[in-house]
Amino acid sequence: MIYCSNCGMRVVEKTPAGDNRPRYVCDACDTIHYQNPKIVAGCIPTLEDRLLLCQRAIEPRYGLWTLPAGFMENGESTEQAAMRETREEACATVEKLELYGVFSIPHISQVYMMFRASLAADDYKPGRESLDVRLFQEHEIPWEKLAFPVVRTTLEHYFTDLRNNRFPVHVENIIRHPSRPR
Amino acid sequence: MIYCSNCGMRVVEKTPAGDNRPRYVCDACDTIHYQNPKIVAGCIPTLEDRLLLCQRAIEPRYGLWTLPAGFMENGESTEQAAMRETREEACATVEKLELYGVFSIPHISQVYMMFRASLAADDYKPGRESLDVRLFQEHEIPWEKLAFPVVRTTLEHYFTDLRNNRFPVHVENIIRHPSRPR
Repeated sequence: MIYCSNCGMRVVEKTPAGDNRPRYVCDACDTIHYQNPKIVAGCIPTLEDRLLLCQRAIEPRYGLWTLPAGFMENGESTEQAAMRETREEACATVEKLELYGVFSIPHISQVYMMFRASLAADDYKPGRESLDVRLFQEHEIPWEKLAFPVVRTTLEHYFTDLRNNRFPVHVENIIRHPSRPR
Repeated sequence: MIYCSNCGMRVVEKTPAGDNRPRYVCDACDTIHYQNPKIVAGCIPTLEDRLLLCQRAIEPRYGLWTLPAGFMENGESTEQAAMRETREEACATVEKLELYGVFSIPHISQVYMMFRASLAADDYKPGRESLDVRLFQEHEIPWEKLAFPVVRTTLEHYFTDLRNNRFPVHVENIIRHPSRPR
């Protein structure tokens, strides 16, 4: 942030009175511009013993596989966001959403909220941001071609919990690995 | 948003190519300014059969009672945010955090993430944003003086679950009530 979105003057970075961390502040119109983490909402869409993954058609991680997920929009609930992302990326309708994972990723200021969900039909195809969409059994998961650590973490929990037929909500932090950004 | 925070020119509101909702867009530098929901993280701090509430010293809802909670900051995990807010508003240290509620409030684009937590000691006092901080038994809760519907919802679930000694994660939406903003 360089300019004030309210009045167009240059902002400065400073800690406002009564605050304890630096913000972008406009001295011309006294606006404080707070910046906060974003929610990424997504699904683990399943159909019997198979699970849907999308092959990314966009950067970052073009060509790698991910669960359908994306930035929650204003005016949505978390479930609505997860369903919309699944519709947009996989042209698939999901139902019976159950919160499954809340993964904070502090170094990129994101919080993933992942829901278990049932595919409403055996009907899916790549959306604009996907090269391919496929259903995978556990032994078919492309573990070496997953797009993000949070996808791996979610899937590892899922298959473990599936064996125990018990799906607690996982609340975890995903910390930067030096050799693997994000 | 009136001006581009990147280049200082006026933004326009329009739906970018390939998008499906209006954004603030800068035609001068081609920046799209996305706006997304904010996370409010907080605690239900307990000590034996009592629970901590803060009386607000700030607007909105000056003088009304609330659970310690506030906007999550960049670089934090959700638990860290909930612990920090409890420290700031009630000068209290909490431990053993367990996710308890995820409440989407679409009309104000907020998602509350509330954690059950134990007070580490019988030690608390009003922080800068609180007039008073007190521990309440269930029959002492000031139900008619709670600051926000999400606080009431959280407390109602909590006391019900306490009687059953079972604390599932509640995922709900809080919809605007015509006579009660927020």
